[in-house]
Amino acid sequence: MFETPITAAVIVIGNEILSGRTKDENLSYIATKLAAMGVRLVEARVVADKTEAIVEAVNACRARYTYIFTTGGIGPTHDDITARAVAAALNLPVERNMEALHRLAPQYKPGDLNEARLSMADMPVGAKLIDNPVSRAPGFQIENIFVLAGVPSIMRAMFDSLRNRLVGGAPIRSKTVACFLAEGTIAADLSALQDRFPQIDIGSYPFYRQGKFGTSLVLRGTDENLLGKAVEELRGIIRALGAEPVDAE
Amino acid sequence: MFETPITAAVIVIGNEILSGRTKDENLSYIATKLAAMGVRLVEARVVADKTEAIVEAVNACRARYTYIFTTGGIGPTHDDITARAVAAALNLPVERNMEALHRLAPQYKPGDLNEARLSMADMPVGAKLIDNPVSRAPGFQIENIFVLAGVPSIMRAMFDSLRNRLVGGAPIRSKTVACFLAEGTIAADLSALQDRFPQIDIGSYPFYRQGKFGTSLVLRGTDENLLGKAVEELRGIIRALGAEPVDAE
Repeated sequence: MFETPITAAVIVIGNEILSGRTKDENLSYIATKLAAMGVRLVEARVVADKTEAIVEAVNACRARYTYIFTTGGIGPTHDDITARAVAAALNLPVERNMEALHRLAPQYKPGDLNEARLSMADMPVGAKLIDNPVSRAPGFQIENIFVLAGVPSIMRAMFDSLRNRLVGGAPIRSKTVACFLAEGTIAADLSALQDRFPQIDIGSYPFYRQGKFGTSLVLRGTDENLLGKAVEELRGIIRALGAEPVDAE
Repeated sequence: MFETPITAAVIVIGNEILSGRTKDENLSYIATKLAAMGVRLVEARVVADKTEAIVEAVNACRARYTYIFTTGGIGPTHDDITARAVAAALNLPVERNMEALHRLAPQYKPGDLNEARLSMADMPVGAKLIDNPVSRAPGFQIENIFVLAGVPSIMRAMFDSLRNRLVGGAPIRSKTVACFLAEGTIAADLSALQDRFPQIDIGSYPFYRQGKFGTSLVLRGTDENLLGKAVEELRGIIRALGAEPVDAE
């Protein structure tokens, strides 16, 4: 609803998510951080560890959004194919990145830096490293694509290190008002409120608490003044329907 | 890697997931259940509550996969647009489904069945209802698309009610073997093992436990005999590298 010119997509790469073995924890972290930076996450995709699937997702997203974040598939094993797949999507050759090599090498005893570990330094030509303060092996940025680890603690550290590389927009502010009214009771007034405030994005989420049905209303937008007005009108709507608006998280 | 002709995609519909406000819990549930039924979840997408976004995702997936499951956006408020968007994707008109109406009506006192609540019975022509034992308002199936609620308890009940509508394939079996070897140590042998067993999908996931780095190796496939052979070879590989294979979850 609201216009933010700075947009993003997340591409989660991993068979383990699609098989149900692992619950993705990275999307909600990135989503929350991006919103605070004024970057609007427009879509997310979960794809398998297959080159064609990664290439297709990267190419579908990279022309449409300001930033693309991939998670997963940058370790030393045969199922870690993200770097090569991203290079393929961009039609770029892969090279052994010398700076990445310099970061990796001191980690290992002589003889332990085998071909599998060296392959973690293979990146598209022109890649700019992303720090990995947890386990050293870096991620990388190429064009508007940020290639991050899948292990949540490492992904978070990598993402946080990007703060000065990502240009955000006006922060997206959010206010939540809850009430013990069923969604169906407030729906018509809410729809009219949304029509009156097209720049505010109004979401409605039912809940069941203390034995009663209620609704959480989330208002989001970049204009604090407008957001405040919409929230004030919403409180009036709730009271007119005989309930009490409660500020919520 | 392994061939299963029966495939699926999940489309999570909801601004609340993309804003980071809510963590999706539905994908991992559906993923786990599908794997047990022998249905291979090939991709998942998270899209905003926007008609064009839903139409694009549905149309990208419905021709490629056996089953499509959508979650979210089927309540009575202005942001619940899934039914209309799915109809638009299929170029089908929307009608007020009489059976859905008969299920909804007894829920409400006379006068409470307002237009917003009635709209929950609006579905593409030809929709077949999906039971909602939790809060009555049904989901629906149209062609190979299953439109489910977003609230996890309702989504799960709806999904479970589909058991006799989904034709599965050979169950995808999974064995996990863990060891205290770093991924980089076992990578080369693992890659060779994957080459010897192209029908088994081998995933490698590092962990840090008891102060030591280790690797969980997940082998998946439909042929139990082949899976057993691959696991046996893997145990041999781990022992040859001086570690002990441990059966794991």
